[in-house]
Amino acid sequence: MGRKTGVREIGREFYSNTKTNPTMSKPTSNDGILATLAESPTSRRSFLRSASLTAVGGALVACGTGSAKTAASEKAATTAAPVAPESGQTGGTMGAHDTVKPAAAALSAADAMDAMHEKGIKAFPAKTAVYGNQLLEPKLVDGVKVYELTASDMQWETEPGKMVTAMAYNGQVPGPQIRVREGDRVRIVLKNQLKESTAIHFHGLEVPADQDGVPFITQPPVKPGASYTYEFTVPNAGSHMYHSHHNAAMQVGLGLLGAFIVEPKNKAKEPKVDQDIVFILNDGAHGYTFNGKSFPATQPIVAKLGQKIRIRYMNEGMMIHPMHLHGMHQTVIAKDGWDQPAPWKCDTLNIAPGERWDVIVNCTNPGTWAFHCHILPHAESQHGMFGMVTALVVQK
Amino acid sequence: MGRKTGVREIGREFYSNTKTNPTMSKPTSNDGILATLAESPTSRRSFLRSASLTAVGGALVACGTGSAKTAASEKAATTAAPVAPESGQTGGTMGAHDTVKPAAAALSAADAMDAMHEKGIKAFPAKTAVYGNQLLEPKLVDGVKVYELTASDMQWETEPGKMVTAMAYNGQVPGPQIRVREGDRVRIVLKNQLKESTAIHFHGLEVPADQDGVPFITQPPVKPGASYTYEFTVPNAGSHMYHSHHNAAMQVGLGLLGAFIVEPKNKAKEPKVDQDIVFILNDGAHGYTFNGKSFPATQPIVAKLGQKIRIRYMNEGMMIHPMHLHGMHQTVIAKDGWDQPAPWKCDTLNIAPGERWDVIVNCTNPGTWAFHCHILPHAESQHGMFGMVTALVVQK
Amino acid sequence: MGRKTGVREIGREFYSNTKTNPTMSKPTSNDGILATLAESPTSRRSFLRSASLTAVGGALVACGTGSAKTAASEKAATTAAPVAPESGQTGGTMGAHDTVKPAAAALSAADAMDAMHEKGIKAFPAKTAVYGNQLLEPKLVDGVKVYELTASDMQWETEPGKMVTAMAYNGQVPGPQIRVREGDRVRIVLKNQLKESTAIHFHGLEVPADQDGVPFITQPPVKPGASYTYEFTVPNAGSHMYHSHHNAAMQVGLGLLGAFIVEPKNKAKEPKVDQDIVFILNDGAHGYTFNGKSFPATQPIVAKLGQKIRIRYMNEGMMIHPMHLHGMHQTVIAKDGWDQPAPWKCDTLNIAPGERWDVIVNCTNPGTWAFHCHILPHAESQHGMFGMVTALVVQK
Repeated sequence: MGRKTGVREIGREFYSNTKTNPTMSKPTSNDGILATLAESPTSRRSFLRSASLTAVGGALVACGTGSAKTAASEKAATTAAPVAPESGQTGGTMGAHDTVKPAAAALSAADAMDAMHEKGIKAFPAKTAVYGNQLLEPKLVDGVKVYELTASDMQWETEPGKMVTAMAYNGQVPGPQIRVREGDRVRIVLKNQLKESTAIHFHGLEVPADQDGVPFITQPPVKPGASYTYEFTVPNAGSHMYHSHHNAAMQVGLGLLGAFIVEPKNKAKEPKVDQDIVFILNDGAHGYTFNGKSFPATQPIVAKLGQKIRIRYMNEGMMIHPMHLHGMHQTVIAKDGWDQPAPWKCDTLNIAPGERWDVIVNCTNPGTWAFHCHILPHAESQHGMFGMVTALVVQK
Repeated sequence: MGRKTGVREIGREFYSNTKTNPTMSKPTSNDGILATLAESPTSRRSFLRSASLTAVGGALVACGTGSAKTAASEKAATTAAPVAPESGQTGGTMGAHDTVKPAAAALSAADAMDAMHEKGIKAFPAKTAVYGNQLLEPKLVDGVKVYELTASDMQWETEPGKMVTAMAYNGQVPGPQIRVREGDRVRIVLKNQLKESTAIHFHGLEVPADQDGVPFITQPPVKPGASYTYEFTVPNAGSHMYHSHHNAAMQVGLGLLGAFIVEPKNKAKEPKVDQDIVFILNDGAHGYTFNGKSFPATQPIVAKLGQKIRIRYMNEGMMIHPMHLHGMHQTVIAKDGWDQPAPWKCDTLNIAPGERWDVIVNCTNPGTWAFHCHILPHAESQHGMFGMVTALVVQK
Repeated sequence: MGRKTGVREIGREFYSNTKTNPTMSKPTSNDGILATLAESPTSRRSFLRSASLTAVGGALVACGTGSAKTAASEKAATTAAPVAPESGQTGGTMGAHDTVKPAAAALSAADAMDAMHEKGIKAFPAKTAVYGNQLLEPKLVDGVKVYELTASDMQWETEPGKMVTAMAYNGQVPGPQIRVREGDRVRIVLKNQLKESTAIHFHGLEVPADQDGVPFITQPPVKPGASYTYEFTVPNAGSHMYHSHHNAAMQVGLGLLGAFIVEPKNKAKEPKVDQDIVFILNDGAHGYTFNGKSFPATQPIVAKLGQKIRIRYMNEGMMIHPMHLHGMHQTVIAKDGWDQPAPWKCDTLNIAPGERWDVIVNCTNPGTWAFHCHILPHAESQHGMFGMVTALVVQK
């Protein structure tokens, strides 16, 4: 369960799938990024400092110490009012308002609120012990890819020190990522260590009915202590999911879910991308999470300027989440694993429960970009950002 | 109000519209199915047994009696652990987990929960006395199709024995289905037997303003005991609705709603389908319902392998409902009665209040497929499936 | 803060942007409407009377006085039952139901409910002192368009006499409309008169990261009494927004939001329209609002028969709002400022938080058309219509 600290780990889940999946062609374009990250300083704070002050034009600003200064501040200095001494700001863009002098009490309250906000952002990406959505390597048995998924009760850390009651596959929330190719023969062995029965539904995969995972319709429930084996030839490509289909409002809410990615047989149809990212939304008993973590413990996406990334959104929750990326648009290419008739662009993509949407982001705008659900109470409170917030860092 | 029991009735609302609507060409492709169903045993249990054990490859499994055995179980037997005696399962896919032996208490609790789940599924499709969405035959008066809709208070049975306070047109929730052709002259006579005023809005139809049904904007409210007549030439084809537009949050929530289907003048533009199914979602005071019924009283769609079915989703509720079909994808062809620029595929289609979406399902995958809203708390609790769950049965 | 009364003001926000925006070509098609409105009687009631009885075929009906009579009523008279004396209706379409005589108590209760409903509709469009979304004229400084936005606490009137706690830019909810052209150089000077810090994010604009407005990521928070200047070259066309990105769940909910419209450099790509309307949805502490107002204080859209109008929906709330227009369909042309691959039609368009959708309505159907969110509890209660309701008036 242990996990090495440091920059190497940042974005690991995003890169690892293309690095390690034996069914995919050997990636080359990511190697540069990974090498760079590997050579970076190893503390999180160092990473952020490096990202904001050296590598990234508009990245995280060191604030609250009177040193805030942005490119705009210099450009705008001639039109801005002089510095408000009581605000503690020295940047040219900041100035006392010319007609109203705020009460000291208001400033003090504002400072207290801002300190909470700053603390959250400075903590990002906060380290937690275990991450979900790790690529699961199959065992090859007579040409069949065999995956073992053990469902068990556990405590899950959604952000540093916040432990929630969970049900997990292989100790991960989301469960380990399964990534196969269209036409592969796969066997999934479910072992049930829960205190209740369960079953796995392969959401989006057009498997034979007896592999569909719905207790009392297509199979018996898998009792505590029992195991059950699914086996099928992977029928259709795309971004799919696997999750419990028994007492599912609770079991999926508590973590029995994961990504089931199917590469198409004909790779020529796939967009060429530098990163292929699974982005699972949830909103149940664990709070508002991205890949099982809440801000500031969500993981950033780190890309190099000019890279093209693919994001596979999957909503395993009970609510819509309109995902808003700052700074760059998203080009929607597929819905539930099926190509859209024509790609279309947006900056805010509404993801409903059970849906998967694939988008391409061309990382053409350097900087650290907020990336969050635009139902604002899912992302921010008076105490600062929380829940469904992460960042896309585009490094120059 | 009486309704004959038996298989003939199952899916009747789905077939009847193409059978009996005088404005439609005589269907031929459904006759085979109807004949088969007519010859089937007449009890619901027999139907299920027949569907699951003879006609349908992966249909409902008889479980909990130690006889569960699926195709996969045999294939997978070599990799699965031996049977867990305490689980009562003998299928080759089930086995005791090799490291953890569950406590008897956990198994007992699991058995109790599973029994509730099984009971619900075994009860499906549970019979209720009256069904909504029955095709309403017009009277032809001087070339005008005349429909009478009487709004009244009633008790409505959403599942066996569960009576809810309702307002209904002609004693049905949803109200009777109106199915006409573009260019038809229609007259709708509303009779108000409610204790409050009402009015009918033809949602999606581009009627003249004075037929739009909004009290105090386009007409006076129709008082208790009064009647009101709408008349117009049907302007635009597609899947539309009629519903109250007076105190509508309550009146529509209580059942004053129905489908208003308009066949296009030019039938060449229509997809050729074997079944044309109206699927109305609601989530008000009656709970989570499909065509006025909650699982296990929802009605399955029964198709033959290779058939093509059209589903017309209509949301008359207050919440989104992302409709997930297992086993096969849905091809979206129209929104609110208007063709999409190009068809597109999905397995989970988000339907918002007031929207109608038309999809095609090619029934290529035999079996009994769960078909439900993917907001899981609308479909399942610890006590089993409920609410927005039905099945698509594809018979070999 | 004062605002002239009268018809001239009705729909002012809708017309003013095309009238006064110096970056747009001089409109000609609206002049006729504006002139007509300017010559109309100046009281709201007069407007309504004129709209319903003279200009608009199927407009607001004077009801409840026994004089209700519509075109349909005459056509339908032969088939309708005679007048129910106790209902107080004399129109030919109304009649006593032939089998049930309602109790006097029911009629009395119905009359009481109807009177509340009528009162709301008769009050529409109810006048309030100040309107948001007024076009903000820039100061031109060395070729830069300079906008000043002052954020302050205030009381905001969402409907006559209903004051809510607000945070507003320049005393308006929504804040003033900014309308520029792709490639313009703009400077936005934010002055913070709030009691807490704030910042502005330009939602949808692909600005450099240091202008993105996210405290502690791209800039320091702007403290009470301080000012901050943003400056950038407008990068991408479309319907965008600006709003607070600090304590935003509260600040945006209380009103710190506005439209940021960017005309494309190449005007040939734009649809030619007679009106260009910004339609901002919100659902926070202010209730359910369109452009900061709740029915009956929402403003109608008034168009001439044959006009083509563009509506730019923007959702600044926390919930979806499926916007349903009666009588005519909406042709969707853009999402978040980006053209859709092909236009598509609907009558109910689901708008999620953070999204913008641009639609075209061809005003081909004369009358007064209800236009509302189809989550009915956002639009109507037993006390009548409220919240997210307005009308599109198509004048012959």
